[in-house]
Amino acid sequence: MKNEDVFFAVDLGGTGTSVALVSRAGKVLERARFATRDFVVEARPELFAEEVARQIQSLLAHFDGAAPTHLGLGAPNGNYFTGEVLYASNLAWRGVVPLAALVAKATGKEVVLENDANSAALGEARFGAGRGVDNFVAVTLGTGVGSGIVAGGQVVRGVNGFGGELGHLTVAPGGRVCGCGGLGCLETYASVTALIRTVVSGVQNGSSGCGDFDAQALERDAESAGPIIASSARAGNPLALGAFQLAAESLGTAFAQVTTLLAPDRFILSGGMVAAEDLLMAPLKKRFAQSGARFHKPLPQIVLSKLGSGDAALLGAASLCFS
Amino acid sequence: MKNEDVFFAVDLGGTGTSVALVSRAGKVLERARFATRDFVVEARPELFAEEVARQIQSLLAHFDGAAPTHLGLGAPNGNYFTGEVLYASNLAWRGVVPLAALVAKATGKEVVLENDANSAALGEARFGAGRGVDNFVAVTLGTGVGSGIVAGGQVVRGVNGFGGELGHLTVAPGGRVCGCGGLGCLETYASVTALIRTVVSGVQNGSSGCGDFDAQALERDAESAGPIIASSARAGNPLALGAFQLAAESLGTAFAQVTTLLAPDRFILSGGMVAAEDLLMAPLKKRFAQSGARFHKPLPQIVLSKLGSGDAALLGAASLCFS
Repeated sequence: MKNEDVFFAVDLGGTGTSVALVSRAGKVLERARFATRDFVVEARPELFAEEVARQIQSLLAHFDGAAPTHLGLGAPNGNYFTGEVLYASNLAWRGVVPLAALVAKATGKEVVLENDANSAALGEARFGAGRGVDNFVAVTLGTGVGSGIVAGGQVVRGVNGFGGELGHLTVAPGGRVCGCGGLGCLETYASVTALIRTVVSGVQNGSSGCGDFDAQALERDAESAGPIIASSARAGNPLALGAFQLAAESLGTAFAQVTTLLAPDRFILSGGMVAAEDLLMAPLKKRFAQSGARFHKPLPQIVLSKLGSGDAALLGAASLCFS
Repeated sequence: MKNEDVFFAVDLGGTGTSVALVSRAGKVLERARFATRDFVVEARPELFAEEVARQIQSLLAHFDGAAPTHLGLGAPNGNYFTGEVLYASNLAWRGVVPLAALVAKATGKEVVLENDANSAALGEARFGAGRGVDNFVAVTLGTGVGSGIVAGGQVVRGVNGFGGELGHLTVAPGGRVCGCGGLGCLETYASVTALIRTVVSGVQNGSSGCGDFDAQALERDAESAGPIIASSARAGNPLALGAFQLAAESLGTAFAQVTTLLAPDRFILSGGMVAAEDLLMAPLKKRFAQSGARFHKPLPQIVLSKLGSGDAALLGAASLCFS
């Protein structure tokens, strides 16, 4: 394979970072993963860049083609225009990190950086449920709510690269306090963190039917909390069911606002929380149909991503380098 | 002037319809106006098309160049993709009117149709406060709230042509009933109709300080109601001041939601209601700064259109025909 047909892709996540060799056809040829916290260390962003350089050398050892010249990088709070990661609250870095420049220096590659949610949307656009669809919104339901908007065939970056932030739409004026400083943001109701918040608050308030939850354990291990709450909901636990219902209805309210503004063809859902689609989809679609967007018949579809977990962001990061 | 440098433009409004000759440089060379209700008659959409044909003949009588071959048409609820006007609640037409085809047949011109709000946004993009700005929202505050969104240099039409409808964003969940069937839409708080609604409701509820309003007169003559309420507000009438404050704060809430999703560079305001900018701007900017969109520093600007009243939509309609 020629080196202009293969690209390095990096998906920097809150827990793990994936590094991959990706073909222009959207195939992940090689991949590796490392724990983000080992190399994302306050005040030392070059550690991460150096680890990426090591990882791509390892990938090349198993690869039988010419080394790619370009690297696409998706990162939380990444800014396409500046190549920086800005005030990423889920990472140990503080302030502004010129990540594209650091990775370019460490690897010798041409680096294009984008935020993780837009990368995922680009991956869906090229290789997933957004292929051939000019207007869609890709929503990742995990620790937070990530989203990337494609309108008229283009990813919406806005004037400063921060367009597309569905997670901070207000769905409940005066509601829950959000990390962004706002009240009632979607992310505080419709993420795994939000599920935990609903359940822990119910336990602390002595809601009925919450006897089988260990609030401290849920907060300690967010990774397993989602599946635990989902299992309880499926077993009929009213507190867990209520947490999913609140999440689903908040998404429906937000999707109606987005539809009013952007009239997308579809919403594409991904992320750990969609494993509970059986709990989410019915109340989400019901609220969506009830909440505004009445001009839009048929309403936009709500579909699940069919790309492998985490692949959308990697494929999208690689596609940033496609000429 | 060559005929490829001049275009016909039509702006179909709820009250009046403007027909013009517009140059590629954005100059309105000739214009005429007729009362919409005389030619927009239920079940006879061809009457309107025939009147447009007559009007453009009259314009040509005063015009010393070759006749243009293209006509751009902005209309409420107009759909760029289909050339139809769909269920326009402010017009006497019912259902779906294939307006572009009818006007093409009556005039013999190539016709491009767009909704009035998107036309205005295109006019701002080419010749107004949106020139050279890739991300902005044009908002017309009149009988209703019209809006057109430009993202990444393209007008946002969405999958069905109904993108960009700021007026039906929910700003007060469970709030005022809107003509669209929803509750709490921006348009029910931030239009001239909304000002009247606030004042009339205050009069009916016997609010203090409303003795000088004639509720029936306000409802009868919506055209003069805006200036009347504005004068009262400037004279310190608390009911009128409250109506403007409610309108301004609702706009601020909506602008914050839009900023979260789209990160525009600016909002461009036009329409009859901006004559009261002295009453609107301070509470609008205050609420906007308080309501979410915290990632966005500096916040998008809020500016007034500098194009002549109604010119944005005419210029935008003409620009639809620019090759």
